[in-house]
Amino acid sequence: MVNLNNIGERAKAVESEMCKLTSAKKNKALLAIAQGLLDDEREILNANNMDIVKAKEKQMPEGLVDRLLLNHARIDGMAEGLRQVASLDDPVGEVLGMKSRPNGLMIGQKRVPLGVIGIIYESRPNVTADAFGLCFKTGNVVILKGGSDAINSNKAIVASIRKRLKSLYLPEDAIQIIEDTSRETTLDFMKMNRYVNVLIPRGGSGLIRTVVENSTIPVIETGTGNCHIYIDEFADLDMAVRIVINAKTQRIGVCNACESLVVHESIEKDFLYKLKDALDSAKKKVELRGDDKACNAMSMNKASDEDWGKEYLDYILSVKTVSNIDEAILHINKYNTKHSESIITKDYDNAQRFLNEIDAAAVYVNASTRFTDGFEFGFGAEIGISTQKLHARGPMGLMALTTTKYIIYGNGQTRE
Amino acid sequence: MVNLNNIGERAKAVESEMCKLTSAKKNKALLAIAQGLLDDEREILNANNMDIVKAKEKQMPEGLVDRLLLNHARIDGMAEGLRQVASLDDPVGEVLGMKSRPNGLMIGQKRVPLGVIGIIYESRPNVTADAFGLCFKTGNVVILKGGSDAINSNKAIVASIRKRLKSLYLPEDAIQIIEDTSRETTLDFMKMNRYVNVLIPRGGSGLIRTVVENSTIPVIETGTGNCHIYIDEFADLDMAVRIVINAKTQRIGVCNACESLVVHESIEKDFLYKLKDALDSAKKKVELRGDDKACNAMSMNKASDEDWGKEYLDYILSVKTVSNIDEAILHINKYNTKHSESIITKDYDNAQRFLNEIDAAAVYVNASTRFTDGFEFGFGAEIGISTQKLHARGPMGLMALTTTKYIIYGNGQTRE
Repeated sequence: MVNLNNIGERAKAVESEMCKLTSAKKNKALLAIAQGLLDDEREILNANNMDIVKAKEKQMPEGLVDRLLLNHARIDGMAEGLRQVASLDDPVGEVLGMKSRPNGLMIGQKRVPLGVIGIIYESRPNVTADAFGLCFKTGNVVILKGGSDAINSNKAIVASIRKRLKSLYLPEDAIQIIEDTSRETTLDFMKMNRYVNVLIPRGGSGLIRTVVENSTIPVIETGTGNCHIYIDEFADLDMAVRIVINAKTQRIGVCNACESLVVHESIEKDFLYKLKDALDSAKKKVELRGDDKACNAMSMNKASDEDWGKEYLDYILSVKTVSNIDEAILHINKYNTKHSESIITKDYDNAQRFLNEIDAAAVYVNASTRFTDGFEFGFGAEIGISTQKLHARGPMGLMALTTTKYIIYGNGQTRE
Repeated sequence: MVNLNNIGERAKAVESEMCKLTSAKKNKALLAIAQGLLDDEREILNANNMDIVKAKEKQMPEGLVDRLLLNHARIDGMAEGLRQVASLDDPVGEVLGMKSRPNGLMIGQKRVPLGVIGIIYESRPNVTADAFGLCFKTGNVVILKGGSDAINSNKAIVASIRKRLKSLYLPEDAIQIIEDTSRETTLDFMKMNRYVNVLIPRGGSGLIRTVVENSTIPVIETGTGNCHIYIDEFADLDMAVRIVINAKTQRIGVCNACESLVVHESIEKDFLYKLKDALDSAKKKVELRGDDKACNAMSMNKASDEDWGKEYLDYILSVKTVSNIDEAILHINKYNTKHSESIITKDYDNAQRFLNEIDAAAVYVNASTRFTDGFEFGFGAEIGISTQKLHARGPMGLMALTTTKYIIYGNGQTRE
C-alpha cells in the first residue's frame, strides 16, 4: 500500500491547482498533448510491441491481440480524440439556479470538478489517452489502472502526456498510472476513499462486478447491455425489420446492440418471415432462438431460459412472444440490464406506456438502440454508459465528470 | 437472508405501480396517512413506551432516552411533516432539455423515481415517518432498518402507514421495515444490490463509516460537519462576532454548527476580545482552544493537533491563526469534512477565492453556516445533507431521490 498511498497523496496535492485552470489553458494543453503523442509515436509503438510480443507468447486470441495493437492510425485516433475534447464546451464554472432567499441570501450551484477520478480498465491502450482527455478537460486528476497486458503501452502513453504537462508548467500528476497490475494492488486501489472521489470501471461484466463488490469508493457502473426491441401489434413491420437489422448487425460487440426481440403474437409470423427475408437478402447470418410460439410461427432454434438474460455480443437474437404490451413490459423489465430498449409501434398509448414504464437508461420509440452513445446524443466523447441510477444515467460526457457546490452570498445573515 | 430476500422481492414487485402514481394521488395519500398517525396515537405511544421502558432498564443516558421518546406533540410533528411534503412540488415526470438531433430523433431526460431506497438510521423514531414521506412523494419504495432501541415504535408507525395505504388501495409494500435489527442482518441488507437501488445511512459517523465500508449498493453519504469560519483581515469584526456566535450556539448538536475558527493574525487580538465580550454579555460559555499565536493574542486553552479535525457538537471552538488567505484555504481544505464553510470579509478577491477554492458542499460569504438545510435553501424537507460528490451534494430534498432516463422519439432512425 505504500506505493498506492504515495500516488494518492500526489493526486490530492495537485487537485486544487487543477480546479483553478481556465478552459483556455486546458484546451491549449490538450492540443499540445495530442501533438506530443504523435511526436512520441516511435516510443509508444516500441512499448506497444513489447506488449504484443508477450501477448503472442501467451497465445492470446487474435481478436484480443488486435485490441491491444497500436499503429500510426490508432495513435492518430487518440490525438484526434484529444483535439475533439478540446473543442467541447467546458462545463466547469457554470452557476445553476442562483436565487435570492427571503432573508437576502443568494444561493446558487456552481459546477466544479469531482476531484480525483480512478479508472480501472482492460486491454485497449487508447482508453489511457481518452480517459485522461475527459478528466483533464473537466479539471479532474486521474489515476489509471489498466490491464497487465497493455502495461508497457499505457506507461509510454502516460509518460508522453506527463512530459507535455511538465513542459507547459502544468501539474504532471494530473495523470498517474498504477504500474503494479496485480489483483491485490487493484483491490487495495478500490479502497482508497481518502484520495479518490469516484471509481469508474471500464470493461467486461466480470471486471465491473469485482469493482462493485469490492470498492468502498463510490462507483459509477458502466454496463453491459441486454437490449430489447419490442415489435408491437401496431408496428410498421418494414420499419421494424430495418431497425432490428441495424440494431443487431451494424456493430456486433457493443453494449447497445439488440440482443433480444419481444414480438406481439398477432404479427409474429409476418414479422419473422419478413425479417428472415431481409437478413437473407442482406447476406447477414443471424441465429434466431425462440420460445415455443416463435418456433411455431417460423422454424428456428429453441431458446432456453438462460437466453433471456444473455448479452450475446454475437450474431444471435432471442425471440420472446407476448400477447399484449403488459407482458412485453414485464418481460423486458425482468431481463434487461437497464441499458437501452425500443418499441416499434404506431399506437400512441403503447408508445407512451413503453416510455413511461420501461426501466432503462434510454428508452426509444421507433428507433434503433444503437444511438445510445455520447456522440449520437450530441455531447461529444463519453467516458462510458452508466446503467446505474445514481449521479449519471446513460452516456456520460463531460458533465458526468463534474459535481456542484452551493455558493452563498450573504451580508451578515444569521439563523433565527 | 430468506427473510431479507422476501422483503426485497416484495419491494421490487410494487416498484412499477409506485412509478405510475399521479401527484394528486400521492398527495391525497400523504394527508390521509398524516391523519392516520394521529388516529393511531394510542397504539404508537404504547409501543413507544415499551422501547422507553427497555431503554431505562438498560440505563440509557437521558439525552438518548429523550430522542427515543414520542408524545402527542411529536406525533403531531410527524403528521405535520407529511402534510408539508404533500404541499411540495413533485419533481417526478418533468422532462429536461428535450432537443432535436440532426437525424430527427428527439431526445430528452425524464425525471423518474430511483426505485427502491434503503434507509439505515439510529434511534429517532420520527425518521420512520419523515423518510417514508419523502420517498413516497417521489414514487419510491422504501425499506427501513431502524435502530434496535426504537424497534417497537418503528413497527407501530409502519403498521399505521401500511394500514392507510391498504385502505386507499395503494401498495402496502411501498414501506417495509426490517424487524431483525441484528448486525448480521444489517450487513446482509447492505449487499442487496438486486433489490435496492440506493442506500442512505442517517446517523453518527460510526454508522456512516460502516455503511460506506460494507455496502455494495450505491450509498449517499450524509455527513458529519467540521465547519469553519474564516475571519479575514478585511472582515467587519462586529459582523464576524454575530455570525460566529450564531453558527456556534444557535443549536449545538447539529452538523452545520461551526466547530473551528480560522483567524487572520492582523485582526486576531481585536476579534478575539470582541468575541469574548459578546459571548460574556450573551451569557454563552464557549471554550476556546487556540494555537500558540491565538493563545498569545488572548488567554485561552491550548489546542492539540487533534482539535483541528474534531466535530465537537459542544460549546467548544478551536482557533487557528493564519497570515494570509492561502494558509486559510489550505488549512480548511485539509481538515474540513466537505460540509459548510464561511468567510467573513469585505474584500472582493478574497471572497471569490474562498468561494472558488474551498472544497465543500456549501461555501458562504458573510453568513452563518447554520443555513445549510433543505428548508433554509428553499426546497422543503430533506432526507439528509450529502457530503459526497456523486449524485447529490448538500441538502437533499425531493430532487435527490429521483434519477432521469433518456426518452427518445424516433420515426424509423437507424445508425449509419
